[in-house]
Amino acid sequence: MAKRVLVVMGSDSDFPVMEACFRMLQDMGLSYEAIVCSAHRTPDAAADLAKTAQEKGFGVVIAAAGLAAHLPGVIAAYTILPVIGVPIRGGALNGQDALYSIVQMPAGIPVATVAIDGAANAAILAAQILAGADDSLAERLKNYKDNLAAAVAARNERLQNKLSELR
Amino acid sequence: MAKRVLVVMGSDSDFPVMEACFRMLQDMGLSYEAIVCSAHRTPDAAADLAKTAQEKGFGVVIAAAGLAAHLPGVIAAYTILPVIGVPIRGGALNGQDALYSIVQMPAGIPVATVAIDGAANAAILAAQILAGADDSLAERLKNYKDNLAAAVAARNERLQNKLSELR
Amino acid sequence: MAKRVLVVMGSDSDFPVMEACFRMLQDMGLSYEAIVCSAHRTPDAAADLAKTAQEKGFGVVIAAAGLAAHLPGVIAAYTILPVIGVPIRGGALNGQDALYSIVQMPAGIPVATVAIDGAANAAILAAQILAGADDSLAERLKNYKDNLAAAVAARNERLQNKLSELR
Amino acid sequence: MAKRVLVVMGSDSDFPVMEACFRMLQDMGLSYEAIVCSAHRTPDAAADLAKTAQEKGFGVVIAAAGLAAHLPGVIAAYTILPVIGVPIRGGALNGQDALYSIVQMPAGIPVATVAIDGAANAAILAAQILAGADDSLAERLKNYKDNLAAAVAARNERLQNKLSELR
Amino acid sequence: MAKRVLVVMGSDSDFPVMEACFRMLQDMGLSYEAIVCSAHRTPDAAADLAKTAQEKGFGVVIAAAGLAAHLPGVIAAYTILPVIGVPIRGGALNGQDALYSIVQMPAGIPVATVAIDGAANAAILAAQILAGADDSLAERLKNYKDNLAAAVAARNERLQNKLSELR
Amino acid sequence: MAKRVLVVMGSDSDFPVMEACFRMLQDMGLSYEAIVCSAHRTPDAAADLAKTAQEKGFGVVIAAAGLAAHLPGVIAAYTILPVIGVPIRGGALNGQDALYSIVQMPAGIPVATVAIDGAANAAILAAQILAGADDSLAERLKNYKDNLAAAVAARNERLQNKLSELR
Amino acid sequence: MAKRVLVVMGSDSDFPVMEACFRMLQDMGLSYEAIVCSAHRTPDAAADLAKTAQEKGFGVVIAAAGLAAHLPGVIAAYTILPVIGVPIRGGALNGQDALYSIVQMPAGIPVATVAIDGAANAAILAAQILAGADDSLAERLKNYKDNLAAAVAARNERLQNKLSELR
Amino acid sequence: MAKRVLVVMGSDSDFPVMEACFRMLQDMGLSYEAIVCSAHRTPDAAADLAKTAQEKGFGVVIAAAGLAAHLPGVIAAYTILPVIGVPIRGGALNGQDALYSIVQMPAGIPVATVAIDGAANAAILAAQILAGADDSLAERLKNYKDNLAAAVAARNERLQNKLSELR
Repeated sequence: MAKRVLVVMGSDSDFPVMEACFRMLQDMGLSYEAIVCSAHRTPDAAADLAKTAQEKGFGVVIAAAGLAAHLPGVIAAYTILPVIGVPIRGGALNGQDALYSIVQMPAGIPVATVAIDGAANAAILAAQILAGADDSLAERLKNYKDNLAAAVAARNERLQNKLSELR
Repeated sequence: MAKRVLVVMGSDSDFPVMEACFRMLQDMGLSYEAIVCSAHRTPDAAADLAKTAQEKGFGVVIAAAGLAAHLPGVIAAYTILPVIGVPIRGGALNGQDALYSIVQMPAGIPVATVAIDGAANAAILAAQILAGADDSLAERLKNYKDNLAAAVAARNERLQNKLSELR
Repeated sequence: MAKRVLVVMGSDSDFPVMEACFRMLQDMGLSYEAIVCSAHRTPDAAADLAKTAQEKGFGVVIAAAGLAAHLPGVIAAYTILPVIGVPIRGGALNGQDALYSIVQMPAGIPVATVAIDGAANAAILAAQILAGADDSLAERLKNYKDNLAAAVAARNERLQNKLSELR
Repeated sequence: MAKRVLVVMGSDSDFPVMEACFRMLQDMGLSYEAIVCSAHRTPDAAADLAKTAQEKGFGVVIAAAGLAAHLPGVIAAYTILPVIGVPIRGGALNGQDALYSIVQMPAGIPVATVAIDGAANAAILAAQILAGADDSLAERLKNYKDNLAAAVAARNERLQNKLSELR
Repeated sequence: MAKRVLVVMGSDSDFPVMEACFRMLQDMGLSYEAIVCSAHRTPDAAADLAKTAQEKGFGVVIAAAGLAAHLPGVIAAYTILPVIGVPIRGGALNGQDALYSIVQMPAGIPVATVAIDGAANAAILAAQILAGADDSLAERLKNYKDNLAAAVAARNERLQNKLSELR
Repeated sequence: MAKRVLVVMGSDSDFPVMEACFRMLQDMGLSYEAIVCSAHRTPDAAADLAKTAQEKGFGVVIAAAGLAAHLPGVIAAYTILPVIGVPIRGGALNGQDALYSIVQMPAGIPVATVAIDGAANAAILAAQILAGADDSLAERLKNYKDNLAAAVAARNERLQNKLSELR
Repeated sequence: MAKRVLVVMGSDSDFPVMEACFRMLQDMGLSYEAIVCSAHRTPDAAADLAKTAQEKGFGVVIAAAGLAAHLPGVIAAYTILPVIGVPIRGGALNGQDALYSIVQMPAGIPVATVAIDGAANAAILAAQILAGADDSLAERLKNYKDNLAAAVAARNERLQNKLSELR
Repeated sequence: MAKRVLVVMGSDSDFPVMEACFRMLQDMGLSYEAIVCSAHRTPDAAADLAKTAQEKGFGVVIAAAGLAAHLPGVIAAYTILPVIGVPIRGGALNGQDALYSIVQMPAGIPVATVAIDGAANAAILAAQILAGADDSLAERLKNYKDNLAAAVAARNERLQNKLSELR
């Protein structure tokens, strides 16, 4: 069975964005734990979380944060588990600050960054990472990919309907 | 033993940047294959590479590209393996275009993006991903992390020397 | 008679923006086909579309996409037809990511990029391209240009009315 | 035989960048005329050039400019020929100003924008546009595309050589 | 008496922004004429306007435009009158494109650029320019400046009221 | 007892943003005075305020401004008190202009810049500065920091509730 | 005779950029005075300069500054003379900070902004402003404009020479 | 006597930039300690430094970092001392990433940010903070400010010399 996923968020106010991540983790049949934890308000708790994640059976960490988004990098500083960073849109700079704060990590401590508000993709990436040691998870990923293609067919049908009204 | 790493580059002119990636893969004891392949000039070859990567025993793909950097996303479209994208600095926009083209992937097809020119971090991230099923690789990553801390001590010593000249 | 125009869109959700393109193609008397197709979700279908577009009698391709907008470039990789790219506004970066992903193509594979959400202009550009071999289409373009000037006169009249209230 | 290409440049100082455009036009067997002309310093000449381009047998206009790059848009205002805009890198904003000035045209007057300093791509796009009415030009474009793929093979060989030194 | 001010706008849809300009011109007692005119849709009319502005008794031109805002630069190409450019906010880039298109003019043809949507300031700047030859206008500008300071006092009073509720 | 804090704002319209600053100053038990004052509309008053702030018993100045936000820098030019700058979001550039105008001060005249709309942080920073000479204020800051951590626990509880609905 | 021009610079290190301004003022036959003066280091001197400029017979002020470029706005706060702002390129943000600090002035206090490093255009704009009351200066501006067009012809000749080598 | 200043740097390679900080601290007669310490490579050491800074007699912390510059924020998470952040220029984004990572801190944990590479200003700000409890330091700051004004006079003389050659 695949290892579990640890999801760390700077605030519960990011839940509406991160809901897509939780749903996708569930769709992928992955077991996860989620916790609110702040690099700035509870730095010791964040360090502890990161230091103990591997021994607790987590295989990947997903960390979401906005503004000067230090959480993913701080987690990555304390663990050798792959850390996926989700820049959260918000504030005057609309998430560009979070993107830069997460992706521009110095040599030695990578954070696997997804798109701004890319919550679902963080979950898929976690599944792809864990699927290396879990064939049934790999199978679910393949099915998901097939369904993506099928959804395009449905979207195309809707487009044709709209066009037939237009012509 | 850990699965192999496939490194795909849009051009051999990116070698000076990507050399840090190859050296780090070797330091981590990872087996890798590297190939020049273009999303635009050899799209069929890129698709084939991606489609067959998993069955050939690769566990992760690293894809580096500059400008309108489509290569990582195009690879990710054809495989469920984790794809790590390295935006290459260059051109008038200095890599900001490559960063946006790689990280802003739509829902369904993630690319694990590292910093602009973050070649070494791409290799470390690949190692972190593969270490989930390879304890000796995990050990090497821990040693590497310890060495990072040790290097900071050396840097601090150099700083103290410079400061003693200044005072 | 002018060749047909192929319009490719990443999603039917872009229809409200692209409607202006379809209406303009119709106003120009151009025959077109539109299809939802994704560079990432249905890459093989996108490749097939592009490879067969010329032999199916299309003379131009218009490709619209948002975020990491790879679709126009991927289409251009497989055809020698002129490909017009429409960056779609959306997401946290408001279309700047799509613009960079579409316009910054490497040497060898151009995409003729129009403004962010420039759907009508994509259709006009397609008409300008096809008018080279279709005199009546050229005539319609000239009429359209004359009408643009006439519309400015109407706008000026509205301005004078507003100003007379102000003074 | 294909129509001729008119290349308009704001200054002869852009020649080092635009040389790639002229060479590619020659490689494609296209006949072209090039002229220095400024939207701001010689606006009447620019208008005349644009107004008479079609009747003089030109089929496409390529216009290159930097900074507040108005030249492509001003040309497009006076002709129904497709106008290809090349933003030239330069000044404090490094070509981002030229890109925005060229690509963000209002509805009604498109400019087919290529990458910043994308001189060769402007020529290829011109060839693609003119190839619609010229089968031998279409053939040359196909050969060019095949050569692009062949060049990738050569680049890959160079990469393998570099890697063999590294391992 | 001061010379008149010519206000040129790309569209009457910019009236809500430019209304502040018209009101300020009136407050300054300046005579003005306003016209909708487009650098791209009615280029000849724009050229004529600019060429004849000086002999018609205008002393300054204010030109407002959004997106690839060429209008101020095109006007400036045809006259030696000072041209004030107002970048209009709008589109996906929110006026940053208009700002760059207006302010980054090449050497030889300046445009006096004010803030994005800085309609009132365009009028004040016009008044400052014309006041050089009109003492009573200079007097009105001094009064206006004094009133600005007085308005700050009123704003401060409102602040104190809000603060007394807060404490 | 701690010295007082002087808060200077370009307009009372920034009160909704700055309210968080005033509340935090009050929570920290700091005495403050606030005044509307403009670097451009009442430059002499701004200079006087800054020149006399120290002798009036103020220990820190907080200056908030939007757009071309000169107020903090102008205050800093006239005093050796630490000046905290708050860039206010607003206008077409959304506060990026205010951030650059405040933070990019030349050597010799620093402004301690906080986040765009970072009103509460300006007050905390003021408290941190004044706490150096006021132990009870330092105590309040420590309590505040402890409360931040406690609030994270409450947020985490809310997250767990939302998650339990989701699973 | 035309009024004099006052040029204010934040530092003599901007002389290499501003030399083009001084030369153009001389070519236009304008009398000018230039002074180093800082909004932050010598704020009282800057205020005095601005307050007395009009009575000293200056008709326009040109103010050049880099980074958080407050000088033009501070000058404009104290005078009703038209103030032309020249953003100087420099520092990590390459002049984008100076552009925003100068152009984004609040309502009431305009600064007539030219391009980043647009020193020559500042002088031409000053001449255009002063030419309203000086016919011989207007004549020199017209000659200058004619010479611009002539220079384009020379540039075109150079282009044709380069092209003839290329073909 | 004033409290000491703690300077924390991510790497000794930033010494050439930070040298101006050390020199200014010395000119201000401030006692300081400097250490290389990384938020990512030695996170525990960074946390310890921050936690013990106050009790060790430091009154201010200056933290300099480039790229995803988390160091200042991480230090601020563990102390109530004022933390001054210096974004270091470097990498493809030229310090804009460091600026955003440092200045955009969430509510509760401010970092007093100075300009990109603003090393000297960080030291002056530290002196301003500590001068609140040290009158002789305040005196030195006033002298420094007077010297700034004097240096402007010297620069002005150099400008006049250059101008006399030009005329």
